[in-house]
Order: sequence, then structure tokens, then C-alpha cells
Amino acid sequence: MLDLWYTEEWTDNCRFSLKVKEQIHSEQSEFQKIDFFKSEEFGTFFTLDGLMMVNEKDEFVYHDMITHVALATNPNIKRVLVIGGGDGGTVREVTRYPHIEKIDMVEIDERVVRLSQKYLPITASKLEDPRVTLYFEDGLKFVEESAEGSYDLILVDSTDPISVGEGLFTTGFYKNCYRVLSDEGILINQHESPYFAKYAAEMKKAHNKIKNLFPVAKVYQFHQPTYPSGHWLFGFASKKFDPIADHQREAWEKFGLKTRYYNSDIHTGAFALPTFVREMLEDVEG
Amino acid sequence: MLDLWYTEEWTDNCRFSLKVKEQIHSEQSEFQKIDFFKSEEFGTFFTLDGLMMVNEKDEFVYHDMITHVALATNPNIKRVLVIGGGDGGTVREVTRYPHIEKIDMVEIDERVVRLSQKYLPITASKLEDPRVTLYFEDGLKFVEESAEGSYDLILVDSTDPISVGEGLFTTGFYKNCYRVLSDEGILINQHESPYFAKYAAEMKKAHNKIKNLFPVAKVYQFHQPTYPSGHWLFGFASKKFDPIADHQREAWEKFGLKTRYYNSDIHTGAFALPTFVREMLEDVEG
Repeated sequence: MLDLWYTEEWTDNCRFSLKVKEQIHSEQSEFQKIDFFKSEEFGTFFTLDGLMMVNEKDEFVYHDMITHVALATNPNIKRVLVIGGGDGGTVREVTRYPHIEKIDMVEIDERVVRLSQKYLPITASKLEDPRVTLYFEDGLKFVEESAEGSYDLILVDSTDPISVGEGLFTTGFYKNCYRVLSDEGILINQHESPYFAKYAAEMKKAHNKIKNLFPVAKVYQFHQPTYPSGHWLFGFASKKFDPIADHQREAWEKFGLKTRYYNSDIHTGAFALPTFVREMLEDVEG
Repeated sequence: MLDLWYTEEWTDNCRFSLKVKEQIHSEQSEFQKIDFFKSEEFGTFFTLDGLMMVNEKDEFVYHDMITHVALATNPNIKRVLVIGGGDGGTVREVTRYPHIEKIDMVEIDERVVRLSQKYLPITASKLEDPRVTLYFEDGLKFVEESAEGSYDLILVDSTDPISVGEGLFTTGFYKNCYRVLSDEGILINQHESPYFAKYAAEMKKAHNKIKNLFPVAKVYQFHQPTYPSGHWLFGFASKKFDPIADHQREAWEKFGLKTRYYNSDIHTGAFALPTFVREMLEDVEG
């Protein structure tokens, strides 16, 4: 039997490997190396520049947590901007809310979208929703050119800051996010991980930039076993709403959405960070 | 340079590997294969029958979470029984409370204790505390022979149910735990993980047995990156105290303990389980 393994170097000293049934696609796009695989345990998955992005087994964790926390803090969000997220899973979760009027998705690499539509319908199938507009552009440039106050929610569903996603971790980008958000606006961004030093350094840098711009800047955690260390974070930044004090539990539950990771208790629980993470985030205040 | 890796098969389809600087000890004890290693990223670590038990990088997570949740629910606990936990980290955390009068530790394999004392002082150094008595016996037999109501807290710090730890996941064992606990007694036990099917099956079995015996039976989670999937659980069972409703936040904070993972917010947050975990646990009620 074919003994094929995909291995990701989480650090120079730590590797995570998945048994692969077959590689179903490989290409070098204009921006990055894209590889799709099938596996027994994780279903179909794809990597960008050799790093795990999305797999069928635990994509629900990431996509629940990037979307529902904001939408349960302000259930009146109407206009959403997704930056990155070419697999479509983030958009899929947003389309589940009937009151959302507009979803703009800006993905720099059209190939990621087209390949996800072909191989990962589990995440990509809602990109056809009539409220969704796809822009194959640089997210950095897109927010630069967007009008003030034109979105209620920005979801930054990016790769790590060490690759194509680099510009999406800069102060310039966050400033433009602030500007294009309405007065009730919320920004959710990929916030890396506290466990291994190289990711923790990026987490601290991102948090420092955001907390200097937004009156509310918090961090929440979740279990994403296929990302380095499995301990992953998102940042919640807002001009007005606090995710705990303003949590609209009942309003969210009225939507009646069935979710496999997110629920009203984890909404609060996810913001309870371990002491070592808290200290890392406070450390950047100096 | 030596390129030596320790690899653990989390499942047949998933592997986790750590770069090793050197193997510092290996033996087959009466009960299991014991191996100690040094590594750059994880410091000194040891395995039992080839499975990661304790490493210097993230042992604080496990030992914080197995001890402080119970001790912040009932700050009057005086008599503690630790079953397993040969590395000494669980005892170390319990000894930090000056009001604890007695700590009995029952470890079946004396070699684990002796080797931890030699190679892992970070966890083993408090085994000399005058309140600690070590018993090198079968934990199952020890609770069978213990008097009714003789402990306020039992901490089951065991290996997986598929090895030496098997008896510590049986109804007979849990019944004896119930009997030897005082009316205010709390039982914390290793509860495996919900992510991979083989661990989830053990989690459900353990929970089912415990909830049939104890009026309070809850489960809480934490991030343990070196255990399979990094999503790990403990069970909290009690005759009287609910870990949320009876949480003694102020009393615990008065102890003034510095902890790197546990804190009063995570005490509550850890019980907020993802929906898929909740459903697995409810599933066993039928």
C-alpha cells in the first residue's frame, strides 16, 4: 500500500504529519504553490507554500470562530468584507445569516478559489450566493481604495505574515480597516499562536498594532489541531462593541444556526486566556 | 549534526515528531518501557511505552489544570490522593497550598518516580515535602482498601486506558473513588480528547461511567500541544460542589499563587465546551 505522508515543520524542532491517499492537484500560481490532497483522517485538504490551510475534518472550527463571535456581538451587521479566505468557508458561515446584505470577498489568488470550488465544495459552495461579490485583488490595496465607513465587519482570513499574507499584518492595513469600518465596526483577524516562539512573536506584533488603533482590542482562542500547536487565536477589535459586555446571546440564538464548535458559552469562554498568553499580550503595551 | 526524531503515532494517519538532542535513559520496568530524552524545543521529556507523558515546555498546562480547578472550587480541601502522576508535577502543584495536610501518591511504577527525580527535578522536586507519602502500588487496589471518606480530593493522573492505566478507567475504580471521598469530595480524572475517534470513544466511556455515579459530573478542556490533537480534557466529578456555581474565585486568589496557565477566568472558560464535544458527552446519556 502507498505510504505517502504530508509533513509540516511547525518549527525546526517539531513536525506534524498526515497520511495522504493521493495528491490531486499541484500548481505554482502567480502568488504561491498550491497543493490539494486526499486523506483518510482529514478528508480533502490543501496547502499554500507547503503549509496546511484547510481540511475537511476541522475547517468548521476555524470558520465558526472567525465569523460567529462578531455576529453574536453585533447581530445588526449588514455589510461584510472578507479578506483572503479563498476556500470560501468564511463566506459560507456569513451567508447563513439572512439579514446580511452584502459580502465582498477579496482574495489575491483566484486559483485558490477556483480549485476550492472544484475540490472543496464543503467550504466553497456558498460563493455563488447572490449577496457575494468576489474581487481577485490585493486586500491591502482594496481597503486603501474603499470608502470610509463602508463595512460593518471585516474578517481577515489570511495566511501567516511570513508569506503572501505579510501586508495584512501591517499598521497601514489595520489603519485602513479602521477607516473603512462604520462607527459600529468590528475587525476579526488571524492572530497566530502563543505556543511556539516564532508564532508568538507575530501574535504580539499584530496585537500591538491593533490595540494602538482600536478602542476595543481583545484576543480569543480555539482548538485547531492541524495548525501549529493546535492553540490558535483570533483578534477581536472594534470601535464600539466589547465582545463580552455587549454579547447578544439571545439575539444570536434566535437565528437558530446549528454550529459544531461555536456556541453562546464558548463565545465567552474563548476570551478566557491562559496566564502566559495574557502576559505576552500585556507585554506589548510597554 | 545528529538528526534524531521522536515520533508518536497519534492515529494511524497522523504523527507528531520532536527533534531530540539525545536519549538519556531507556529501560523496561516491571510495567512498561520508560525512555527519557533531551530536546531543544521541549527540554527534557519522557515517554511510557512510546507515548509522550511529560516535557518541560508544557507540563505546566497539565499540572495547573489537574489541580487548581478543584482547589478553587473547594479551598478547604485537606486530604489529597494522587493516583499515578509518577513525574511528581501534580503533587508539586498541590504542595503549593499551605493548608493541605496530607498528600498520598500511589504510583504503580517506582521507576518512573526515581527517574523523574533524577532527570526531571522541575516536576519531581516536591515529592520530598513532609506532607507527601509515596505508595508504589496499584491504584485500583489502593482505593479498594482505603477507608470510606478518607480523602477530600482524588486526582487521577494516569496514562491512557489502553495501557497500564486501563483499570483506572473502570466503573469499579470510580465506585471506590466515590466511597473513599468525603461528602464534599471531588474527583478529577484524565478524560482523553474529543478530536480523534479512538480517544473520543474512551472519553465517552469514562464520562458515562462517572456520570452514573456522581451527582455532579462535568468536563473541562485545555490546550496541551504535545498530546494527540492538543485538545485535552479532564473530568470534574463531585458529591456536592459544582465547579462553576461554587467557584471560590476570591478565596483562591488570596492564596497568591503564580500560575502560567490557570487563572480565575479560565476556571470558568475551560468548562465552555465546543458543541461537538457537548454532543458527544450528551450522547452517552441514552
